[in-house]
Amino acid sequence: MTQKIAVLPGDGIGPEIVAEAVKVLNALNLDLHLETAPVGGAGYEAEGHPLPPATLKLAQEADAILFGAVGDWKYDTLERALRPEQAILGLRKALGLFANFRPAICYEQLVGASSLKPELIAGLDILIIRELTGDIYFGQPRGRRTAADGHFPGTEEAFDTMRYSRPEIERIAHVAFQAAQKRGKRVTSVDKANVLETSQLWKDVMTEVGQQYPDVQLDHMYVDNAAMQLVKAPKRFDVVVTGNMFGDILSDEASMLTGSIGMLPSASLNDKKQGLYEPSHGSAPDIAGQGIANPLATILSAAMMLRFSLGHEAAAQRIEAAVQKVLAQGLRTADIWSEGTTKVNTVQMGDAVVAAL
Amino acid sequence: MTQKIAVLPGDGIGPEIVAEAVKVLNALNLDLHLETAPVGGAGYEAEGHPLPPATLKLAQEADAILFGAVGDWKYDTLERALRPEQAILGLRKALGLFANFRPAICYEQLVGASSLKPELIAGLDILIIRELTGDIYFGQPRGRRTAADGHFPGTEEAFDTMRYSRPEIERIAHVAFQAAQKRGKRVTSVDKANVLETSQLWKDVMTEVGQQYPDVQLDHMYVDNAAMQLVKAPKRFDVVVTGNMFGDILSDEASMLTGSIGMLPSASLNDKKQGLYEPSHGSAPDIAGQGIANPLATILSAAMMLRFSLGHEAAAQRIEAAVQKVLAQGLRTADIWSEGTTKVNTVQMGDAVVAAL
Ligand SMILES: CC(C)[C@H](C(=O)O)[C@@H](O)C(=O)O
Ligand SMILES: CC(C)[C@H](C(=O)O)[C@@H](O)C(=O)O
Repeated sequence: MTQKIAVLPGDGIGPEIVAEAVKVLNALNLDLHLETAPVGGAGYEAEGHPLPPATLKLAQEADAILFGAVGDWKYDTLERALRPEQAILGLRKALGLFANFRPAICYEQLVGASSLKPELIAGLDILIIRELTGDIYFGQPRGRRTAADGHFPGTEEAFDTMRYSRPEIERIAHVAFQAAQKRGKRVTSVDKANVLETSQLWKDVMTEVGQQYPDVQLDHMYVDNAAMQLVKAPKRFDVVVTGNMFGDILSDEASMLTGSIGMLPSASLNDKKQGLYEPSHGSAPDIAGQGIANPLATILSAAMMLRFSLGHEAAAQRIEAAVQKVLAQGLRTADIWSEGTTKVNTVQMGDAVVAAL
Repeated sequence: MTQKIAVLPGDGIGPEIVAEAVKVLNALNLDLHLETAPVGGAGYEAEGHPLPPATLKLAQEADAILFGAVGDWKYDTLERALRPEQAILGLRKALGLFANFRPAICYEQLVGASSLKPELIAGLDILIIRELTGDIYFGQPRGRRTAADGHFPGTEEAFDTMRYSRPEIERIAHVAFQAAQKRGKRVTSVDKANVLETSQLWKDVMTEVGQQYPDVQLDHMYVDNAAMQLVKAPKRFDVVVTGNMFGDILSDEASMLTGSIGMLPSASLNDKKQGLYEPSHGSAPDIAGQGIANPLATILSAAMMLRFSLGHEAAAQRIEAAVQKVLAQGLRTADIWSEGTTKVNTVQMGDAVVAAL
């Protein structure tokens, strides 16, 4: 049965890197139907909205979404509801993509690209699992009003609501423990339970669910300490599970530790295994159109898509092996290039992966 | 006129490191009256509360507070209101200590202690200014309840409120711009305005206040990107200003980048220049009582106290010069020791600073 993939290239380097991932998917000769639609700034230009109704419909009906990146400074002055980021928030919400997988892996050949000393980063393999549809990102009420109390009653204030319900925490906990069972069997749950009510519930529920996974070791860490430990000793982590807001910060910090964020894929899944797959990096409008962006994070996101949403484990492994092979061949885009390796552009990198399949 | 200092050693290594800072203060022969009181776990042990009324009164009547650290695993099972951290939150709130200064400085001699490659960290000198009495730390309402809406209506949920009023943002903005005027004349305001209403107001007000400081260059950065840039290129920052929650995370991340958090002081000021001065590191119960903790962050906090709250700039500089001198002499506590330097204990380090004054 033909599987349907919504291809949403987006803005900046999005179209360039997605084109290479599509090339790789096509080379696999699977029974996939790919359909492209505009999103983000491109959606706004085409249809007046970052997530045009037809794009949303395509995404909802697809088995999986291959997403490039959204955002460009030129949309900074638009009202919030029309800005490119709303597309990604809208897709997460509409499809219930609550489980975000953000691996932070340091490839052997790219150790030198890290800000960190080689011994601290070589062999890094962390999986950050970020809850993606709750927390202060979506919590109501929110807005502006006149402060009724606080330090300056009677003045203008803005507010947002952080909130998590027990079942929301339970389901992401299960995702994290089950992921850990397939890896190092350790989960670090990150919260700020010494300050926040929401975090205290988060911690309580993590502990409860953890009892169903006696083979997985659970520990709890405050978010400020986690931000420090990632810098000090990143390899101490296996699976990190945290809420939407803290996960936004920590997953980006962890990615950047590797020095090669251009290599890092991500997956955002719902409970029907529908998923949105996108590189961990952004739309990089500064280098868009130059054909020099690294397509590997997007190509590896396509591999995650084959594995998690489409049931093509063998094809996923073929892509991952091909990426390893091009790295071993010494091919590098500008972002990961170093003395003694061969600089290639976006298209050449995509072609090399296809050749290595 | 005698100036009054509340000395609150707290838990873990707190008493050991504060003793050395007190020794240094006494050696300066200033007209200071120091009075000690229990706080944190020590407050709970002595008076049944982490911030006993007499301790709070002492702090309120003092010109400044010299604070050690609070917390110990043995209090983890107490109800939240009795845990050691409540002391520090209570002091911030009661004294209105809204402006937290967290320098992240990499001392030339300690470059090797960092996780980062030397060229990325040598010469680092960032000042993080964290708003300390607002945001989701203190925002009401908060608690647990049955969810009325959201993903799982009818289930148990916990919630907290992020909020900032315009005058709260204005006053911390002025602090940041004025601090930048005395330094590199650049302010990076960190928010999550692409998602949060509170951040949008934060950004708007920062921009407005910035217009009163045409000599300072203001830029805005999302918190996830800031967490990345700190790892990638920490020296790009001069003054970073952000809210209470993001500041908690980013200031700790920045401290740890230096690899020598045992060297980093902090100050928390109100609008009357009353301040609480404490090391950036925690109570380290694992090494408490061994006499090996690094007292320099606390000693440097005492220097900040002399500068910001007590008007003794010359004495502050004497302490800072003395610390530079002991480092140049090659004296190191265990946390910053490296091959070829002389390992000293807590008391020896304090004595060396006194000798170097
Ligand atoms: C664009 C933005 C809304 C988004 C987020 O904060 O979730 C991004 O930073 C991410 O992590 O995917
Ligand atoms: C102990 C805790 C409440 C506190 C905070 O989160 O502010 C600490 O982490 C700090 O940064 O001083």
